Amino acid sequence: MTTRKVRVALNGYGVIGKRIADAVALQEDMELVGVADVVSDWRIRVAQEKGYPIFAATPEAAAAMRGAGLAMAGQLDDLLGQVDVVADAAPKKIAAANLEKYRAAGVKAIFQGGEKHSLTGHSFVAQANYATALGREMTRVVSCNTTSIVRTLGALHQAGLLKKARGVLVRRATDPWESDHSGVMNTVVPEKDIPSHQGPDAQTVIPELDVVTMAVVAAHTTSHLHAWSVELTRPASRDEVLEVFRSVPRIAFLRMSDGLVALNSTLELMSDLGRPRGDMWEVGLWADAVTVRGSELFYNYQVYNQAIVVPETIDAIRALTELESDGFRSIAKTDRALGIVRDFVRQV
Amino acid sequence: MTTRKVRVALNGYGVIGKRIADAVALQEDMELVGVADVVSDWRIRVAQEKGYPIFAATPEAAAAMRGAGLAMAGQLDDLLGQVDVVADAAPKKIAAANLEKYRAAGVKAIFQGGEKHSLTGHSFVAQANYATALGREMTRVVSCNTTSIVRTLGALHQAGLLKKARGVLVRRATDPWESDHSGVMNTVVPEKDIPSHQGPDAQTVIPELDVVTMAVVAAHTTSHLHAWSVELTRPASRDEVLEVFRSVPRIAFLRMSDGLVALNSTLELMSDLGRPRGDMWEVGLWADAVTVRGSELFYNYQVYNQAIVVPETIDAIRALTELESDGFRSIAKTDRALGIVRDFVRQV
Amino acid sequence: MTTRKVRVALNGYGVIGKRIADAVALQEDMELVGVADVVSDWRIRVAQEKGYPIFAATPEAAAAMRGAGLAMAGQLDDLLGQVDVVADAAPKKIAAANLEKYRAAGVKAIFQGGEKHSLTGHSFVAQANYATALGREMTRVVSCNTTSIVRTLGALHQAGLLKKARGVLVRRATDPWESDHSGVMNTVVPEKDIPSHQGPDAQTVIPELDVVTMAVVAAHTTSHLHAWSVELTRPASRDEVLEVFRSVPRIAFLRMSDGLVALNSTLELMSDLGRPRGDMWEVGLWADAVTVRGSELFYNYQVYNQAIVVPETIDAIRALTELESDGFRSIAKTDRALGIVRDFVRQV
Amino acid sequence: MTTRKVRVALNGYGVIGKRIADAVALQEDMELVGVADVVSDWRIRVAQEKGYPIFAATPEAAAAMRGAGLAMAGQLDDLLGQVDVVADAAPKKIAAANLEKYRAAGVKAIFQGGEKHSLTGHSFVAQANYATALGREMTRVVSCNTTSIVRTLGALHQAGLLKKARGVLVRRATDPWESDHSGVMNTVVPEKDIPSHQGPDAQTVIPELDVVTMAVVAAHTTSHLHAWSVELTRPASRDEVLEVFRSVPRIAFLRMSDGLVALNSTLELMSDLGRPRGDMWEVGLWADAVTVRGSELFYNYQVYNQAIVVPETIDAIRALTELESDGFRSIAKTDRALGIVRDFVRQV
Repeated sequence: MTTRKVRVALNGYGVIGKRIADAVALQEDMELVGVADVVSDWRIRVAQEKGYPIFAATPEAAAAMRGAGLAMAGQLDDLLGQVDVVADAAPKKIAAANLEKYRAAGVKAIFQGGEKHSLTGHSFVAQANYATALGREMTRVVSCNTTSIVRTLGALHQAGLLKKARGVLVRRATDPWESDHSGVMNTVVPEKDIPSHQGPDAQTVIPELDVVTMAVVAAHTTSHLHAWSVELTRPASRDEVLEVFRSVPRIAFLRMSDGLVALNSTLELMSDLGRPRGDMWEVGLWADAVTVRGSELFYNYQVYNQAIVVPETIDAIRALTELESDGFRSIAKTDRALGIVRDFVRQV
Repeated sequence: MTTRKVRVALNGYGVIGKRIADAVALQEDMELVGVADVVSDWRIRVAQEKGYPIFAATPEAAAAMRGAGLAMAGQLDDLLGQVDVVADAAPKKIAAANLEKYRAAGVKAIFQGGEKHSLTGHSFVAQANYATALGREMTRVVSCNTTSIVRTLGALHQAGLLKKARGVLVRRATDPWESDHSGVMNTVVPEKDIPSHQGPDAQTVIPELDVVTMAVVAAHTTSHLHAWSVELTRPASRDEVLEVFRSVPRIAFLRMSDGLVALNSTLELMSDLGRPRGDMWEVGLWADAVTVRGSELFYNYQVYNQAIVVPETIDAIRALTELESDGFRSIAKTDRALGIVRDFVRQV
Repeated sequence: MTTRKVRVALNGYGVIGKRIADAVALQEDMELVGVADVVSDWRIRVAQEKGYPIFAATPEAAAAMRGAGLAMAGQLDDLLGQVDVVADAAPKKIAAANLEKYRAAGVKAIFQGGEKHSLTGHSFVAQANYATALGREMTRVVSCNTTSIVRTLGALHQAGLLKKARGVLVRRATDPWESDHSGVMNTVVPEKDIPSHQGPDAQTVIPELDVVTMAVVAAHTTSHLHAWSVELTRPASRDEVLEVFRSVPRIAFLRMSDGLVALNSTLELMSDLGRPRGDMWEVGLWADAVTVRGSELFYNYQVYNQAIVVPETIDAIRALTELESDGFRSIAKTDRALGIVRDFVRQV
Repeated sequence: MTTRKVRVALNGYGVIGKRIADAVALQEDMELVGVADVVSDWRIRVAQEKGYPIFAATPEAAAAMRGAGLAMAGQLDDLLGQVDVVADAAPKKIAAANLEKYRAAGVKAIFQGGEKHSLTGHSFVAQANYATALGREMTRVVSCNTTSIVRTLGALHQAGLLKKARGVLVRRATDPWESDHSGVMNTVVPEKDIPSHQGPDAQTVIPELDVVTMAVVAAHTTSHLHAWSVELTRPASRDEVLEVFRSVPRIAFLRMSDGLVALNSTLELMSDLGRPRGDMWEVGLWADAVTVRGSELFYNYQVYNQAIVVPETIDAIRALTELESDGFRSIAKTDRALGIVRDFVRQV
C-alpha cells in the first residue's frame, strides 16, 4: 500500500462517469480531485451536492456554469494539473482530442469501451490482464458487453474448457434517464453486421477466445441479456461449470427458483439491497438455468451496462499508477469498497 | 381437383382463428360454413360484418350472443353437423374436450401449435410432411416459431447442409390487441428451461433435426425474431445458402440495405402493400445479413406470429380431406390465393 | 361535377403523404399524376408496386433513385408542370422553399399541420370552413390533434353549447414504423409550454373557441388520446351531447361495453375491418364514457394521427380547385370513397 | 417525546410495505418489531439481509418459509402480540380479514389506499387531518394519487384560492419489478368511469374539495403524472400560487429549465441523490410550467406511487398511538428522518 493516495480526475460526468466518481471516492487509496463536464443542469448539480469539486471541460461550459450559478473550481486544464490519472468517460467523439490534453499534462489516462483499442493500444479487464497494464500510460476499459464476455468466457478458457462460444446479445435500447427521443419502441432491431463487434473486441483482451456474437436491440432500458451456446473441449458436468464461474471474480448467481426471473426483478433486488443507484457491478448469471449436454453448454446472464465497468476502471487506475502490483489484490480492494458479492442474498 | 368445395368450420375466432376464417373464404376449393366462438363483443361483430355465419361455442355463449343482439346461426353442434373439417383455434385448455366433439360429429380436425403433439399424433408443416397427413382424421399445425424453424432448417437439412443449429428466440410479449394487463414492460424475461420447447417440437415434424433453442420474451408486441448459429456439414458459400433458402416456399427476403431494418419497419411494409391486417405469412429472412464463415452459418429472421401458420392450416385442410394429393400443388394454390411472395417489393 | 378530373401531385411520400396518395387515387374526380420524394428505399418501392409515377424531389434524389434502379418519371418540376394542385406532405423545414416552386409553377398547394398558419394565411377543416377555401391558391390542413379539436368542439360550438374547453392530450411518442432511435421509453414527457399550441391552432379555424390544452408524450406509438373537461353554456343531457357529436361528420363512436377499451383494441378493429393500413380517419369517441354533470361535460377520444387529416386534404383539394362548391357534398364524396362511417360495427 | 418507542409491525412486505418497514426503522421513536408476509423468495430474503425479524402471515407461508430455509421468528399472531400498532400493506382482498385479527389482538391498525374509506371510517393525509386521527383505533392512508391531490389542492383550498379543479391522471401501467404479464404495452387505456374514483376519495379527507378526475393508464412503469386545470376563487399571480405550494409540506419543485423534463429524468435524479431505492416521497411539481391566466391555473406534477404514502403512514402511526399530538411536528420528524426536501438540488 502506498502512503499517499493517488489523485484522480473524472472527465465526463455522465451515466458511467458519475458512477466512477463515486467509486473513486470510496477507495481508501484514491482521492477524487474533481469532476469535469460540459453540462450545467441537474446532472452536475448533483455532483455539487456531493461536494465534488466541479471543473468546466470547455471554456463554453465554464461560461454556462457561471451563468447557472454553479460553484466552479476551474477548468479541465486546472484539474489535470492536480492529478496523477484521469478516468475519461466523455462522449467518444472527443476522446482523441482529450488524449492530447492528458498527454500534454503528463497525466495517465483510462478510456472507456466506446473508444477503439487502437486509441490506447491496450484493453483492460482486471481479472484477465491486470499485469499487462502495470505502469502503462493509458488503457481502455472494454465495454459492458465485452467485459461480461471476458469475465465468463475467460473463466472457461482459463479452466481449459472453452472450445468456442456463440452468443446472442439482447441489448437495451437506451439508458433509463434518456427522454430525448433516443429510444426504440415496440420493436426489435437486429444489428446490421454479423458477427457483431463484441467478439473481436473480447479478443483484444484474450486473443485466443473463439467467440462470435450476434446482437439485437430490444424495447427496454433495463440492461442487456446474453444467451450463449458454448462448445466445451470435453464433456463436463453442470456442477463443474458452475464451479468455474464461481472461481472468478465479479460473477454473481441469480436463481429463477428464487423469483429472480427477469432483468427488472434483478434490478428491484439491487434497489432493495440499498445499492447506490441500484447498481449491479457483477455479471448476474442465472445459475439454475445453466445447462450442459455432453460437451455443450448453454446459459444466459444479465449485464447491467451502467455499472459493470466501474470496478474495472478502479482496478485500471491501480494498475496504471502501480498502486497495487497484484490484480487480484486490487480486485479484492475494489470489491470490498463497493460491496461486490457472489450471492446477492444468503442461500441456505 | 374436386368438383365440390370442402366445407370448413372455424372454432375459436381469435387472433389466429379470424385469419384462418378469412383465408378459407379466399380458397376456391373451400367453403367457410361458419365460425364459432364464446365472445359477443366487437370481435365477433366483425365476423358478422363480413357475413360469416356465427355459431355459439357454448350454451352460455349462445345466451350472451342473443343478449348482444347478434344474428346467431346456431351452436357449435349445429355447425359441426354441416362440415367436413374443423379448424380449431380455440384456447388450448379446451382442445381435448373439443376433440371429443369433433370425433362424435365425424368431422376431421386441425389443431394449432398450442396443443401437444400427442393430442393428434401428427404435427404438420406443409413443405415438410404434407404427404403423411393425407386422409388423416386430424393433425396439429405446429406453432409459429416451430413452423419457421422447420421451414428454414428443413431447407438446409433437405439440401444436406445441416449439421446442427443453435438458435435464440426473442419473442413478443403479447399480441398487439391485448390491453388487459398481459404484457411485460421494460424488461426481458428469459425462459426458465434451456433448451426451450421449440427444438423438440420441430423434431415432431423432422425427427433428424439437431436443433437447440433458448428463448426470451422482450418488451414488444410486433412479432418474434430468431438469431441462428448453424454448423453446416461442409464449407459453403453465402450464395449457396441463399439459394437453398430461395428454393423452398414461404421464406421471403428482407434487405437491410433496402431500409427494412427492424421488426416494425417490416410490418409497415406489409401494411403499405395492402395486405389484410398487415399480415406476413412468410418467414422474413434478412438476406443481406446472412453470414457464412467456413462451415458456420449465421442469420436472423422475423416470425410474424399472428399469421405464419395460416397458410399451413389451409394446406392441412387439403391434406386431411384429400382435396389435393400433392403438397406443393396445395402450397401453390394457397400462396396464390393469399398473395404469398418471395420478394416483398421488386428488386432490380 | 366537373367533366374532367383534377390533376393532383403528392410531394413527400411519408406517413401522411402515402395515405393522401392512395386517397386521391380513390376519388372519382381526381387523378394522381405522380408522387415525389427523396428516398429510394422500400418506402418508394411500394409506390412503384402500386403503379404510381415516381418523381425525384431533388436532383440528388434523382441520382439515388437511378442508382437504386427505380423507374423514375422525372423530377419535381416535371411533375408540377402536369398538375392543377399539389398536396405537400414534405418535412416541415422545406415548406417555404417548396411554396416558391409551387407558385412559380402556377400550381395550387395544400400544406399539412406541421406548417404555421402564416405560411398560407388559411387553415382548413372541411366541416368548419370549407367555403372560405374555395378557389384559394393555398391552404393548410391543420394537424391531427387540431383537426380532432375542431371537429368535436366545433360541433358543440355550432350547437351553441360550448362555453369553454380544457383538454389534456396524451400523445404518441413516435410513429409505429420508426426504428431509428426516435422514441421515448418507459416515461411520460410533459410539454414545456402550458397551454400547448393546439388551442391557438384550433382558433385559426374557429376563432371563437375558448380552448386550452396541456400535452404530454407517452410511451406508445398507437395514436393520441384526448381527455376533455368542457363547460357548457347551459345544463344539457347526455343524449343531447351525443346527438350533437352524431350530427357532424367524421366522429365515430367507440363503446367500452363492446370491448373497445384502449387505443390498441380500436386499431385491431380497424385492421379486422380490412381498412387500408388499419387506418381510422374518424375521431373515435368513447360514447359510453361521455359524462355530463349539470353544465359540465367530460369525454375522451382517440386521434389516429397517421390518417385523420387525409380526408381533410381531399376536401381541401376540392375547395381550392372548386371541383365542388359545397363542403358537405365534398365530405360525402370523400367519405364514401374512403369508407368513413359513424359506427364501426353494426349496433343493435 | 415519549420515553419508550412505539412498537410497530408491518404486514405485507411488498412494494409499499418494504418501504414502510425501512421508514419505521429510521424513526427514533419507533421500533420495527417484525415484518410478516406470505412469500419465501428473494423478496423476503432481503428483509432477512436487513435483519428484520420475519413472521409468516399464514400457516401455509410458515411451511414454505421453513422449506426455503428462512429464519422465521414466528407467525402473524406472534407478531401482533408484541406490538402497539400494525401497518397493513397486504393485498386488498384480505384487509377485512386482517382487521379482525388486529382487533382481536388489541392492536391499532393503519391500512393503505387500496382499501375503502368505509373499512376504517377515517382517511388520512398528515397535513390535512392529522388531528382527527389522534388516538383512533385505525385509519386508512389514502392512495398515492389521492395523497397528491390532497397535498396540492388542499394547499389551494386552505389558502382560500380553490374554486374547482379538473384533472387528468396518466397512470403507470404496473410497478417496475413486475414481470409476470401484468403490463399494458404500446397503448393507452382510459378508465371506464368518468369521473374516476380519486376525486371522491380526496373528499374523504377534505369534503369541501370540488374536484373531478379522469384517468388513463399509459405504457410505462415510472410513476404517475397529473395535469390540472383549476379555477381559482379570484385572479392570482403565478408567484402567489407557487408560494402557496411552497407553504405546505411534501411538495418539491422540479424545473424543466434544469433539465428535469420527464418522469424518468426525475427518477434518475432521485437515484443520483442516493435516495433509498431512488424514492421520491414528495409531489414533484414542475414549477416553471405552472401557468396562471386570470383566475385559471394550470400545472402538472409527478406522483411516485411506490413511496409517496410512506411518510404519511409514519405520521399515521404517531397519530394513532399519540406519540405526537401535533401533526406538523410529526411531519417534521418524519421528513428529517427520511430526507424529504423542498428543492432536490440547490438553486441559485
